[in-house]
Order: sequence, then C-alpha cells, then structure tokens
Amino acid sequence: MCGIVGMVGGDLTIKKLVDALRKLEYRGYDSAGIAFRTNEGLRVEKSAGKIDVLESHLGNMMSTGVLQGMAHTRWATHGEPSDFNAHPHTDCTGKIAVVHNGIIENFDELRTALESNGHIFKSSTDTEVIAHLIEDHYRGDLITALRHTLVDLEGAYAIGVMHQDHPDIIVAARKGSPLVIGATQGGGFMASDVTPLLKYLRDVHFMEDGELAVIKTGNVQILKLDGTPKVKAPTRITWSEDAAEKGGYPHFMLKEIYEEPQTLRNAITGRIKSKLPHFRELEKMGEDLTKIKGITVLACGTSYHAGLVFQRFVQDYAGIRAEIDVASEFRYRNLPLGEGDVVIAISQSGETADTLEGIRKARQSGAKVVSLTNVVGSTISRESDAVIYINAGPEIGVAATKTYVAQLAVLLLLGASLALNKRNPEVISQLVNEIEGLPTVFESVLASADEQCQRLAREYYQFRHFMYIGRGYSYPSALEGALKLKEISYIHASGYQAGELKHGPIALLDRDFPVFAIIPEDELKAKMLSNIMETRARDAKVVAICSESDREVSRAVNSRIEVPKVSAPLYPLVMSPYLQLFAYHVAVARGYDPDRPRNLAKSVTVE
Amino acid sequence: MCGIVGMVGGDLTIKKLVDALRKLEYRGYDSAGIAFRTNEGLRVEKSAGKIDVLESHLGNMMSTGVLQGMAHTRWATHGEPSDFNAHPHTDCTGKIAVVHNGIIENFDELRTALESNGHIFKSSTDTEVIAHLIEDHYRGDLITALRHTLVDLEGAYAIGVMHQDHPDIIVAARKGSPLVIGATQGGGFMASDVTPLLKYLRDVHFMEDGELAVIKTGNVQILKLDGTPKVKAPTRITWSEDAAEKGGYPHFMLKEIYEEPQTLRNAITGRIKSKLPHFRELEKMGEDLTKIKGITVLACGTSYHAGLVFQRFVQDYAGIRAEIDVASEFRYRNLPLGEGDVVIAISQSGETADTLEGIRKARQSGAKVVSLTNVVGSTISRESDAVIYINAGPEIGVAATKTYVAQLAVLLLLGASLALNKRNPEVISQLVNEIEGLPTVFESVLASADEQCQRLAREYYQFRHFMYIGRGYSYPSALEGALKLKEISYIHASGYQAGELKHGPIALLDRDFPVFAIIPEDELKAKMLSNIMETRARDAKVVAICSESDREVSRAVNSRIEVPKVSAPLYPLVMSPYLQLFAYHVAVARGYDPDRPRNLAKSVTVE
Repeated sequence: MCGIVGMVGGDLTIKKLVDALRKLEYRGYDSAGIAFRTNEGLRVEKSAGKIDVLESHLGNMMSTGVLQGMAHTRWATHGEPSDFNAHPHTDCTGKIAVVHNGIIENFDELRTALESNGHIFKSSTDTEVIAHLIEDHYRGDLITALRHTLVDLEGAYAIGVMHQDHPDIIVAARKGSPLVIGATQGGGFMASDVTPLLKYLRDVHFMEDGELAVIKTGNVQILKLDGTPKVKAPTRITWSEDAAEKGGYPHFMLKEIYEEPQTLRNAITGRIKSKLPHFRELEKMGEDLTKIKGITVLACGTSYHAGLVFQRFVQDYAGIRAEIDVASEFRYRNLPLGEGDVVIAISQSGETADTLEGIRKARQSGAKVVSLTNVVGSTISRESDAVIYINAGPEIGVAATKTYVAQLAVLLLLGASLALNKRNPEVISQLVNEIEGLPTVFESVLASADEQCQRLAREYYQFRHFMYIGRGYSYPSALEGALKLKEISYIHASGYQAGELKHGPIALLDRDFPVFAIIPEDELKAKMLSNIMETRARDAKVVAICSESDREVSRAVNSRIEVPKVSAPLYPLVMSPYLQLFAYHVAVARGYDPDRPRNLAKSVTVE
Repeated sequence: MCGIVGMVGGDLTIKKLVDALRKLEYRGYDSAGIAFRTNEGLRVEKSAGKIDVLESHLGNMMSTGVLQGMAHTRWATHGEPSDFNAHPHTDCTGKIAVVHNGIIENFDELRTALESNGHIFKSSTDTEVIAHLIEDHYRGDLITALRHTLVDLEGAYAIGVMHQDHPDIIVAARKGSPLVIGATQGGGFMASDVTPLLKYLRDVHFMEDGELAVIKTGNVQILKLDGTPKVKAPTRITWSEDAAEKGGYPHFMLKEIYEEPQTLRNAITGRIKSKLPHFRELEKMGEDLTKIKGITVLACGTSYHAGLVFQRFVQDYAGIRAEIDVASEFRYRNLPLGEGDVVIAISQSGETADTLEGIRKARQSGAKVVSLTNVVGSTISRESDAVIYINAGPEIGVAATKTYVAQLAVLLLLGASLALNKRNPEVISQLVNEIEGLPTVFESVLASADEQCQRLAREYYQFRHFMYIGRGYSYPSALEGALKLKEISYIHASGYQAGELKHGPIALLDRDFPVFAIIPEDELKAKMLSNIMETRARDAKVVAICSESDREVSRAVNSRIEVPKVSAPLYPLVMSPYLQLFAYHVAVARGYDPDRPRNLAKSVTVE
C-alpha cells in the first residue's frame, strides 16, 4: 500500500504536489519521491523517510513552477526503504518516470529478460521493470506503450507515467489498487484516493480494474486495454475532507474492515505459483524449512490469535509439532530450543518489544526465526532470519482488523507450503484455490455483514458481559471476537474453549450474561450445539455465528449471523469481518470512538 | 483419606457401628468393612462399594449385640477397591484386626521381611503389614505390641486395633492422620473425626502425633511411644452435628482449605527417598521416562492450571519440551504424537470425559500416558500406562481447593524426578527439601490468611469485574484465582499474562474494574511493577499478593496480602490458600453458598 498523486497543467508547483502527497501519508511513510517536468526537462528527487524529509531535501525548489509532476509515498514491499528504492522510478534514458502502488508478481522474470536486453536497473523494486518495459514499447505514443506494458505485467497496480516528450499528459492504469482521476480547466489530477483532489475538484472517476487513462487539463480520457475508449459519467464527491480521509466511512476502523478484500489480495499476491503456495522470502532458509523438528509461534494480542490458528493448522495439515506462547512469557522461559527449531514471530508493527526480545532469545539458542510483519525494515524484520510481509498497508484504527485478516491469509499459505513434502499436491492446491477465492468471498460478505452486525449490536450493546465460545479453529475466533469487544466497547468479554465452560466459567452465566457462539459447519458442530444447550439452560441468551441456512443452529439460539461455507481452516478468516463489525457497532452504539480506544496504543514498544 | 470408627462396651450393636461409619462416608466410599467381637470370637465382614453395600451384606446381623467393634470406609490408595483390600485387615491367626487411615511408606520392605518369616498376606494393602507386625510383637500386652509396631512403621497413620483376647479395649495410635477418642460410662469411642461421637459424648481428646491410647468403658488412657502416660484435659465440643461434619467450619470449602497442610503431607508421603523424588508407581515405565522426547499435558479446569505450572517447571527445570492443551481441544486435534512422547493427564475425579478420550487418543498414537488423579480405580486410572494418586481424600466443595494443592505438590515432585538425569542431585534435593517443608509453611499461612482475605473481601466484594494478572509461575495462579472467583462468587474475573494487558485488555480497566496482581519476589517482579503502574494510571484499584515486607509493592498498590518467601516454582502452591480464601469470603459476602455453586458439578463426565 503506497500513495500516489499526479498533476498536470495549470499553475502547478512542486509545493502543490507535496501538499497533495501529505494527504496520503497514512498509506505509507517509508520513503517519498517526486518527478517533475520543468522547461529544462524531467527530474526526479527522492529520499528515505517521511514526506518531511523529502520537503527539506527539496528546500527552496518547493516554489518552483512545473508543467507536470507525480509524487509517491511508499509502504515498502519489495526492497528496503532507501533512497534508491523510493519512487518514482525511471527507465534507462531518464525520460520516463513511473509511480506505482501494488505488487508486480512476475517482476523477477521481467527484470531478467530486460537486463539480458541491456537495461540497467538502479533499484531492487518491482516497480522499476515498468519504466523499462515502457521504454521498450515506446514508439512515440505513451498510452500505447503503457497498453503493451500492461500485457506483460502480472500482479496488482495503480500506475502513473510521465514522459519528457509529453509534458501535457500523465497516463495511468489500474488493476487491483485504487486510483482516482479527474480534470478541470485548472489541470488534470490523479491520486490513490480522493482526499488530495478535493481542493481542486469534486467530479472524479474512480478507475476500475483494466482501465487506462490519459489525464490532461480540461479532461480525462478512459480507455480499455485494447485502446477503445470508455465513456463514463464522473462521480460527484460530497464528503468533507475529514470524511474523505476515511473513504467516506465514519471511522478508519470501518474503512479498514471494508478494505479487507483488497488486503487479502495483497497478502496472497505473489505467493502462489503453479497453484501451490510459494514464498520467495523463504528460499534462503533452504534445509532449515524442509527439516523442521518443531515450530514455536511467538506473538502478542491479536497476532497471538492468528498464531493459534497457524499452530493448529500446521499440526493438522503439515503434521509438524507446533507450540505457541505469548511473547511476554516466552522471553522469560527456559525453552529447550535449538537446531531444527523454527520460530514464527508475528508482529503487525514489527516493533513489539516482547516479540523482539523473544526473537533474540530464540536465535541465541540456535533456532531460526521467520517473522511475519506489516512494516518493511522494522526492527523485527531486520533481526529475523527471514521475513514475510503481510502487505496490508498502514492501519489507522488501533484495534487490528485488516492486518489480522492479512496475517491469517499469509499464515495459511505458509502452513500449506510447509505441508508440501507431506501432502498430496492436489489437496494443497485445492486449499490454495479456496484461499485465492477469499477476496471475492469477502466482497460478498461485506455486502451484507454490516447491516446484520448493526442489527445485532442494537440488540446486545447494553449487556456488560459476554462469553465468546468456540472449538477447534473457532477457538481463536472466540478469543479475537472477545478481544475486539473489550478493546473498543469496554464490555468485559471472555473467550473460552466451549468444552471448558463446564469446568467453571458456566457458573457466570445468567440472563445478564449472553454467549456469543462461533459454530461453523465442521466436525465439532454437534459438540458446540450441546454446549449451547447447556448455556441456554442457564437462561443465557445465545448469539451464534453459523453457516448459511443452518437450521439446527437457528433453532437453538436467540440470534444469529450466517457466514458462507468454507473449509474448516478458513473459518477464522471468514468469521473476522463479522466479529469486527459487531464490536464496531457495539462501540458506536455505546458512544465510543472505535478508532481511539482508551488506554491503548497501536504499536507496543514497551514490555 | 479413609474413615475409621471404633466402639467398645455398653449396649453396642453392629448397627451402631455402621451408623457411626456413615457419618464418615465423606472421607471415602470405595469399600467398607467391620470387625466385631461377639461371644463366639472376633469376626470381620467387608465389601467393595459404599456403606450401603456393607449393610445389605450384613443383613439381619445388623441388630447383633457385640462387645467391641471397629469399622472402616475406604478411600483407596494402595491396592484397588475390592473385598480383599477393604479394611479391617487381620493377622495370620485372625485374632488381631486393624483399621488404618494413612499411608505406610515402607510397607514393601516390611512385607518382604514378614513374608520371609512365614506370614501369609491376604490383601495388597499397606495396612495389612500392621496386623502382622502386631502379631509378631504380641506377648500378651496389646498396647506394648502396638508400641513396638509403631517403631517399625514409616509414614502416616491413624490406627485402631482389636485383639480377640482383649474384648474390653481398643488400642489406637496417631501420626499424621486425625483420630478423636473419648469414653463415658456407656462405653469407649474412637473416630476419624468428631461427628460419629457427638451422639454419645461431648468431651473428647483430639489425639496428637506420637500418641497411643487404650480406649475402654469409662476412660481413655493416653501414652507416649515409650509407654509413659500423658495427662490431658478433654476438649468440650459445642458444635451442632451439622457443623461437626464440616469440622466446625461453616462450609466444606473452608474446611478443605484448612486441610491443605495435611493434604500436602499425604501427597508427598512416600514420594521422597534419600532426599530425592521417587515415584514407585513409575518404575514400570522404565525407559519410557528416561528417554522422553516430549511431554504433553492434558487437563481441564483447575487441573489445567496445575498442568500449566508443571509444563513450565518441566521445561525450566528438567529441560524437557512440554506442551499443554485443554482436553476438549486436544481430543479433536491431529497431534503428531508417537513413541517417546509422554502424556501427563490430570483429572481430580479420574472420570473427566474429555480427558479420558484424550488419553485414549494419545495411547492409540503410541504415546505413553501417566495420569494424575485422586480416585483409585477410576476409569482414567485404569486406562493409563501408569497412575499417580494425589491422595487428597474426598473433596466435597465443588470448586477444587485442596486437590489443586495436592496436584501441584505431586507435579513438582514429578517434574523434579524427571530432572534427575539432568541436574545436580544437590540442587534437586534442595528443592525437594523445600517441598517437604511446605506443610509447615501452610500451617503458618493458614494461621493468618483467613483474617487477611476476609478483610480484603469486605473491601472488594461489590465489584462486578476483576482482572487477575501474573507472569511466569504466577500466570497459572492468576488463571486459578480468577476461576475460583468466577465459580463461587459469579463475579466476572479474567486471568491474563501481565504482559498481554497492553495488547488489548487494559482498555477495560477503570475505577470499577480492579486488578488482582500476583507478584511474588522473583525475577519478574520489576516487570510486574511496571504493569501495575500502567493499570494504576487507568484509575483501577490494585490488590496485590506479594512477598513478606515487600515495600516496593506496598507503595504501588491499594491493598495487599503477604505470602512467605519460597523458590519461584513453589509460589503457585503458597498462593493457593490466599486465592481460595479470597474467593470464599467474597462469595460469602455476596450471600452465595460456596460449596454448591450454580451450574456446576464436581465431576464432569459429559463433554
């Protein structure tokens, strides 16, 4: 997730471009850069760090008037955050500049081919191949060159391109990553979201997958890949700037839940090869991964819940012994770890203090550490033997939502890849295929989940207690559902293995203490139904989250939400938006700001 | 823990003896038996099962008048519950009958010696050696024979002895197990507690360790082991019969907490040999225990918390990889268990359905199962490769108290025994020595804990929420403390690793949500203090359970309880009575019956 802006024509200055870019800083702040066209030609300036760093680097150039320009703020995926890897990227001639948000999956092959044709690369990014491809395909018409380039690309992108010989246009394309364009008599505009544009115009086009555009003063022209024009009416934006930052949603949390289909796409992209899971990041681990004696998962909070799913999955599916511990406990344990042990450390921020110390301890003992994080170049990513990025982009809401979904998707693919030597590839590719279909499943889920969860929240927001229960793969969902409610609605919610209720916690239940049962269509459903009956016998109300048209559950509970049917290990994913939306609407109904829960911080860098 | 009664003289009938025995049925009901002296001589009748079975076996003998008699209801320790193993036991001549409550630690050596001298044994109990020893030492004076016998015995006992040639007396001795005696003109009496005697007398002697007694109509004579008489004033009992059943305590739960010093003694007895831990029960496991690849602990509820302590201890102390799972989850997991894996299954009742199924699954996969239970002959004990009994005796209170303490003591000794090949024996024997001293520590704890906990309960019983936190060995204590409160006071209490608070749960805290911090003097104290400061900053009240005269903690918290200093792995034991007493007094203050919490059953034989 990166942020891009582009402007052409009118009384454009570098300052206008940088100011516009600031509106997108929430999308990443590893590095920033700008390409601009003065009468002297096309020039690129960029630097690692936040936009402030770029601004002081630009110094008194800021007021320079330019013909066209594009700027980029980066959330690193391929290549460390550095000056070299910052966007924009240019071709060999320096005449073409490209900004890109997304991931080019086949960049390795493309780069090899381009290099063998004599192209010289200056960065280690996937994006740079786009500039060189356009250079290759350019015969005087920039949009045609871009059309040919898109044919070569696999992956997700929002792309903006400038060419020194075309100072009056910016060309753009979108597949999988957002891009908004528009034009007035004062100039042409493009950006990753609408916020930087609101100062200049209200009628915009949200580009759709497969569309290209030529942007100039006065109008934008939208084309299909084959070059035929598309005629579309613009969308009029009535949001305030504040609402626009949140994509029109009242809170970042809700916006980020709605980003989950895209988050899933980004998490999966590049990690499936010939229908099987593939992690390029792990190639350097070599035998350490094929000869695993045991896995230890290390995490805190929501990441710990993702880890619980992984622990079960890797045991069930790959037949590998797997333990899990919260990092604050792990680091003070005397664990018999050593050669052959692999630690999977999960931290959204990559800076979680306890997890970091756990990693150090594990490596000292001789174990190898693979970390899963959202932040390229974070301390944890630097101190691990291998890093897998979940590519979820910045998350503003303090309570994790889309990053949990991204963690789960990556962990399932990772678990499946560890099963490659032990399972029929056909079985694995079936599961992978199902994971690949999840973004679409999530889109249909999000089309109706919000209304269902809001209705439920209205019914239950006044309770002071909740007991979330689940079994098997749904136990981590129970913990995570309870945690979400605790974090943002301050309702005391407990998560339990449903089978443990009778060993004590059931004493709590009565008419004032409802149960939230997570009960998908799996082999444990019958046991869950028995547990639900026991809680009903104590007068507790039961909300169930169950599979579509499950009549047995419907009859047994007071209220329910229905989720699409998927394979058992995928339920923790499909359950997530419902649990998150329920917590969200309860918090809102109780009058709290879900984006800024009391007492909490986004990145826990203390112990 | 067994129950014994004895009566001599007056208008005694078998029915009177059996009725008296019923008052002790709470002490065990695996088998029952009676020895009685009619004009025809001494006779013994006994049968497996409850006292009802004995009564129907006796049939119309019930009304028979007898000169003297002793009866016994058994909680099996050595030897399965069966007719043969039921008490009373007799010598070779059949003239001597013995009832016994306790464990004779050196019975194996004694039996071997007796057998090589020609004695024929009829049972597999430890008790029968007493009868044969008395036979050996008897020269016409029963009390002298008993004095010599006691010199041979190691272990704990309350013993009653009858001899056919002495129909007017019963002789008795006590060390470690309770025995109450008394006499009126209507006869002489003895029993494990005062309840069976209240119908006949109110002035009794609670025998002390090392005392012997000759009981007859009109008086009891108390002697020391060397034969010198002791003069003691009797104690007048003013309790009602109902109160007497509870040992004078208002609830069984409180009585059972006060039994913990004795429970500890019983749990430890026979498990230390030459200052090192020793489990005779495990000898048959042979190499399975010296070549452990890994341990998996399997349990539910409170037993699970004891298992958490063991898991940590066996990792820390014995350097053995150890995992833990709640049984209801374990049984549906696909765990890579096999040869070299040892499963430690913990179930107080020995009948917990999920644990039993987990054991079956583990054994099918090739793992060996060692179970820890309180009930001899229970299903789990029969289906395991080896069984270790915690010897806590029946627990009437539904919320586990003394059995948790017994589990912890046995598990620590077990963990220490697994470290025998890996650690300096000196280090192990130091720890064992500290464990041996725990009963005395508990006695001093219980002298003041009740008052402290009651004071605290008065301060906090009106809160509706509690957050229990701990780190390391104190994390299981946090879970167990929270569970006790949930079970009997219905206050919603959560147990958390203190380091996890910041990852979400801390959002719950405010002035209405107090924190119960378990913070002993160990290497994690500084971290705990930081966590406490964080919770104080949220206006939450903090109760701490800390080490004696810890000024740092005192300054940081609102209220505190002080516990004696012990080594880190022993804190879960020492914390227990405080956590239990706090929950008890809160429940009482809230008007609930702590013995019979709503919605709960003692033995969970459903899933």
